[in-house]
Amino acid sequence: MSQKFPKDFGVHDILDLILCDVDYLITCSNDLAIIQNGAVAILKGRIYDLGDSEEIKARYRARETLSLKGYILMPGLINAHVHAPMSLFRGLADDLPLEVWLSEVIFPTESKWVKKETVYLGSLLSFCEMILSGVTCFCDGYFFEEEVVRAAVEVGIRGIAGQGILDFPTPDAPSSDRMFERAERFLSSTHSEMVRPSLFCHALYTCSAATVKRTKELCQAYGALFQIHLAETEWERSKVLELTGKSPVEFLEDLALLDENTLCVHGVWLSDEDLNILNDRGTGLVHCLESNLKLASGVANLPLWLERGLKVGIGTDGPASNNNLDVLGEMGMVAKLHKGFRRDPTLCSAWEVLKLGTILGARAIGLGEEIGSLEVGKRADCIALSISEPHAIPLYNPISHIVYSAKASDVKYVWIDGKPIVRDGRLVSLNLEEMLKEARRISQEIGKRRESV
Amino acid sequence: MSQKFPKDFGVHDILDLILCDVDYLITCSNDLAIIQNGAVAILKGRIYDLGDSEEIKARYRARETLSLKGYILMPGLINAHVHAPMSLFRGLADDLPLEVWLSEVIFPTESKWVKKETVYLGSLLSFCEMILSGVTCFCDGYFFEEEVVRAAVEVGIRGIAGQGILDFPTPDAPSSDRMFERAERFLSSTHSEMVRPSLFCHALYTCSAATVKRTKELCQAYGALFQIHLAETEWERSKVLELTGKSPVEFLEDLALLDENTLCVHGVWLSDEDLNILNDRGTGLVHCLESNLKLASGVANLPLWLERGLKVGIGTDGPASNNNLDVLGEMGMVAKLHKGFRRDPTLCSAWEVLKLGTILGARAIGLGEEIGSLEVGKRADCIALSISEPHAIPLYNPISHIVYSAKASDVKYVWIDGKPIVRDGRLVSLNLEEMLKEARRISQEIGKRRESV
Repeated sequence: MSQKFPKDFGVHDILDLILCDVDYLITCSNDLAIIQNGAVAILKGRIYDLGDSEEIKARYRARETLSLKGYILMPGLINAHVHAPMSLFRGLADDLPLEVWLSEVIFPTESKWVKKETVYLGSLLSFCEMILSGVTCFCDGYFFEEEVVRAAVEVGIRGIAGQGILDFPTPDAPSSDRMFERAERFLSSTHSEMVRPSLFCHALYTCSAATVKRTKELCQAYGALFQIHLAETEWERSKVLELTGKSPVEFLEDLALLDENTLCVHGVWLSDEDLNILNDRGTGLVHCLESNLKLASGVANLPLWLERGLKVGIGTDGPASNNNLDVLGEMGMVAKLHKGFRRDPTLCSAWEVLKLGTILGARAIGLGEEIGSLEVGKRADCIALSISEPHAIPLYNPISHIVYSAKASDVKYVWIDGKPIVRDGRLVSLNLEEMLKEARRISQEIGKRRESV
Repeated sequence: MSQKFPKDFGVHDILDLILCDVDYLITCSNDLAIIQNGAVAILKGRIYDLGDSEEIKARYRARETLSLKGYILMPGLINAHVHAPMSLFRGLADDLPLEVWLSEVIFPTESKWVKKETVYLGSLLSFCEMILSGVTCFCDGYFFEEEVVRAAVEVGIRGIAGQGILDFPTPDAPSSDRMFERAERFLSSTHSEMVRPSLFCHALYTCSAATVKRTKELCQAYGALFQIHLAETEWERSKVLELTGKSPVEFLEDLALLDENTLCVHGVWLSDEDLNILNDRGTGLVHCLESNLKLASGVANLPLWLERGLKVGIGTDGPASNNNLDVLGEMGMVAKLHKGFRRDPTLCSAWEVLKLGTILGARAIGLGEEIGSLEVGKRADCIALSISEPHAIPLYNPISHIVYSAKASDVKYVWIDGKPIVRDGRLVSLNLEEMLKEARRISQEIGKRRESV
């Protein structure tokens, strides 16, 4: 029995769920196994066994058995960086210089509209979009994060919720002192099985050294992930260099901020020495390619990160700067872009990119022991992709297919913690229509008020 | 009455089809009109009228009236460069250096498998994928192009079919003389209303000056589009420079090959002077971003092409080098990539990219008078995108939504030449299941034989 099971898990022969007859079972485990005609057996939210479909069917009985003939079964995708509540601001304005977009669109809209109800609703909306496109775990940063947790628990998605920290009045903490108070309250009072609390320092240009240090100490006290946007723009790197004589990574290193429980987001502007430091510390990095392109920040050197063996995941960033939450689409872009950008078609192979979206992403955000691959004892977070559409034929190599040809709409089944969340393309854990109606109503108000400014 | 109607079209008040109650009718016409609660009235394959839904409904009766509440209606997308039959080779191998991929995978597979039946079947498969993702017109180049025409006519897609020309034995012309003979036969005997014949010189490194000249003369004799891959790789540009002292564009210019009926594909490696020449001649250019990235050819300077006002379209290239035929996805990538690559978030706005995928693409391939926008008198090639999914909410700006957030799977209705081809997400012009079964069977053979090599 795998060491991944809790000690009191026990041995069983009537299970909760068997997913069988799978055309290609993609494990994303260390041996990169692909099992044709495979099956996964699930009990109490965990993978109890997996392997050849006929063997699994002969070995166990289960309360539900589902044939996935015509499907790929694989681990759920990990969106390692997102601001889920911002879906309500998606598409308000695009194609603008960053400072205009932020100061004239995003900041005024946020100051008027970010409140408990909109954070909750925006998060629900984002989680529905993510789940329907195969994401089973998110890593978030925003305000009123207890509402993000509430939405995640309601819809049944796994994740990490990072309460935002800035040296400015924020919608949920009008003064700095109250900010740490509420941050600590968030860490101490979040007890969800599915969503871990975290703190998210916005950036080095919005948080002082004292603020990032105090935030990290709070995270350490509660065993929580510390997150920060880092080296996103050339301007940021220059600014930190100018003020401190150090690169953003060196600055965090000197503050003793970097360890396995720190997650740096973006990393577009990193030196070789920066990468060495991050590698030595085991610090995670998140690549947000589409956002970095859309906001014209530049292109991170992902192929070098992978060569060095850094802990790397893929993130969509917030829906206002992308403008979608489609991790599968992001993977396809990652696989293609770096080849063209660095003029080497062997970079970012389909296998590497598949791992980025699954097991490597899980490791980067600190959940690699629990999720990210289909292995006995791990949490049963998995998705089934239909391979019956014209774009899935031929299918010579399922890994190539997933990365280069598959679409978010191929995701027809999603299980998180063994629970069915999407069946036959429909979300079953929530009344989607009702939620969308409310999101439409609120967004009409947001749009109207903005026009009238 | 619009001048676009044929002279004998007449005035009618009972029409074939009215598409009404459209949330956003995106015309892509010169005035870039967006009509909320719009309608399009269709007769004999053409747009008879369009405008406010209530007015159109009051003005006409029709054999069929369809409410598109909850949809965007827009012109069908133009895939300005594709090798449709190659879908059967999609995903055979990826992530390889170009010369290995071509010499060890693509060329041996083509020499064994390219024949009438596979060209027909591969084309059908590609057309189904394209239509289901909103493409209503293609511009192709390959061998046995009469089979491409046959497949296009069968499924009901519009397009241009370019018979391939090379100074090597090809699957359909074992000797050079027979090549021109069959090329002329193709031009003279193709009389489809929907698919125009064309010739496609593979490239300057595979066709001599005499061959490209003779090919262009044949095209001129038949009023056909002359197509060529041009300046795709740095190697190609250097090679042509080395052999002729001229850039690929200058070389064609000196041969008097460039005019409004020539279409150059790729253009990754063009000089300023090259762009001036192409602009002066009114020659079309096709941007194949995803293929250029995946094969590590580089990034064409699309923003400069647009600034200069060149005739530009978007192409997916063949499904073996992309590996999908999703023009909407390609548009999203185009809109984002150039911002990041050139570090300017105002480049390639959503509006510009939408036009690239529709009216500009139509003009580039010489069909701008007939298709590419929804205007009275033009052919009724249009698509309806559902805006009821979570990723379509909020929807502050339909243009931003189409380019940055919409997915191929949002395409639920497709009409080409006024005929319904997709209804409620299902292809109605073909028995899809039967075709896919045959494509699966052939691809299993292709895969097996390749493994045994």
